[in-house]
Amino acid sequence: MNSSGDENAACDAENSALAGTDIATICSNQKDAFFEEKDAYGGIIVNSRRPEHERILCEELPDIVNASVAKWIEKGIKGVWFKIFLEHTAWIPVLVDNGFVFHHAKSNYAMLVRWLPLELRMGIPNFAHTYIGVGAIVTDGDGHILAVRDKVSFKKRFWKLPGGYVDPVKLVGFADESLSEAAEREVLEETGITAKFETIVAFRHYQHGPFDTADIYFICVLRPLNKIIQKCEVEIEECKWMKVRIDEFMQHPAVSETNRFFIECYLNEKKVGSIGQRTKVIQQWGTLQDLYSVTPPGKTELLT
Amino acid sequence: MNSSGDENAACDAENSALAGTDIATICSNQKDAFFEEKDAYGGIIVNSRRPEHERILCEELPDIVNASVAKWIEKGIKGVWFKIFLEHTAWIPVLVDNGFVFHHAKSNYAMLVRWLPLELRMGIPNFAHTYIGVGAIVTDGDGHILAVRDKVSFKKRFWKLPGGYVDPVKLVGFADESLSEAAEREVLEETGITAKFETIVAFRHYQHGPFDTADIYFICVLRPLNKIIQKCEVEIEECKWMKVRIDEFMQHPAVSETNRFFIECYLNEKKVGSIGQRTKVIQQWGTLQDLYSVTPPGKTELLT
Repeated sequence: MNSSGDENAACDAENSALAGTDIATICSNQKDAFFEEKDAYGGIIVNSRRPEHERILCEELPDIVNASVAKWIEKGIKGVWFKIFLEHTAWIPVLVDNGFVFHHAKSNYAMLVRWLPLELRMGIPNFAHTYIGVGAIVTDGDGHILAVRDKVSFKKRFWKLPGGYVDPVKLVGFADESLSEAAEREVLEETGITAKFETIVAFRHYQHGPFDTADIYFICVLRPLNKIIQKCEVEIEECKWMKVRIDEFMQHPAVSETNRFFIECYLNEKKVGSIGQRTKVIQQWGTLQDLYSVTPPGKTELLT
Repeated sequence: MNSSGDENAACDAENSALAGTDIATICSNQKDAFFEEKDAYGGIIVNSRRPEHERILCEELPDIVNASVAKWIEKGIKGVWFKIFLEHTAWIPVLVDNGFVFHHAKSNYAMLVRWLPLELRMGIPNFAHTYIGVGAIVTDGDGHILAVRDKVSFKKRFWKLPGGYVDPVKLVGFADESLSEAAEREVLEETGITAKFETIVAFRHYQHGPFDTADIYFICVLRPLNKIIQKCEVEIEECKWMKVRIDEFMQHPAVSETNRFFIECYLNEKKVGSIGQRTKVIQQWGTLQDLYSVTPPGKTELLT
């Protein structure tokens, strides 16, 4: 890990500037300077949308950036962030000229960063780089699973588990879906089946995902509440309850080895009676986290 | 999932333009036009670094963008991507004026996107939004685990498992670390202990991570090859082999409930003999994926 990053990073996130929480305002009124806010690691954040920045003319920017960087270096500041919204993207070339690089972007802003100490390894973690997907094993209790064939994928001839991406933040202040919410939503969207999350049996870590990212694909087991299929006309070419064994899913030439692996895991784990558990735990600071394990932690039976 | 996204996305990734693979060049020599490449879904990618773009003057850009968008709409193109490198960031305000927004950014480029059909829901998945971390349960076979206290975190008084983020792509063409590589590297960096990955016992999904991202933290079990601690002076305040029971880790006031949960899982799973498995599977297109499950898939013992 790099120096400002933190091994148990999620624990620290919302208390840090990295979480977008501005810890302290350290400069607001100085002429020809940015309105700065301080992050939890002693770095500086400049937000292009601060009303204090409206008066800044584009031609003044290079001088202000230059002077500010000189001041920050003198003060021993290490990390400097600029959060540039769409309407201020003219700032970006100026920042790039001054040694800033992109850190990440979301639809309405780009975050640029410059690590000032030349002698110190950059202490800023890279941005999130993993897509999270869910696949759903929906069983009808009678030897069938719900299987779909895509309309648009290059693998459209393949029969596979319904599923999709976990949705990221939709609205400010709303968090990502949980894995179970994503699995339930995808099954409903694609197949019209309302199904309830029960457990996770396996996952895949794939390190060659889109845009040079990674991809983790969690296999969830869901219990259906109805069995009449109404497939999504946009995404799904075909959808049916498919027999798991021999003549169908497990032996089908158009089922990937990975999908077969997941079904085998499910059947085997069910057989040996060992299946994942989910526990919800409130963190010290009041936010919820989902904890998944093979067995419940079993507090009363700790090994001695 | 949205329409161009794909439920089993990782499977499709490297075959799509989303993976940065340009499927077909569809325009290269036209005057006053961009060098375009086509993605797997019929969209257009414009890369600012194409040598064909060197002749474009900044003042010509608005007209070229305008004319190109009109042409793409006429052709029925849906998604248009601009990959803008640091040295061409002057393009960005022009694109934003033309309705483009950010999709994601990496240190040396920003990817902008515009979905052209007004009548169709945007069929482009959001960017990866999950940090992946690993925590390591390193046991000495004598009732102790390796525990650390951070130097820089706001939780620096807490004793916890060594660990950290999985590193994203380091060099072009090199993939992210695997979970096991990350766990082994973090333990070595932080504590000086060389330890070998054995299994994963649990994970946490946390939906309130840095920069409005999520965070998944996998708990790995590692077997140490040496026991002499040489802690990292930059990151680690204190590091020791700590007794798991009563007087130490599990009862320590400065151990989080989450960390205790993970240790309880480990002890319980070990007791009931059920612990995670890892299998490496080569995908159809030759890249490796790691598959994790509670039990091995047990092909020969499938339920009938």
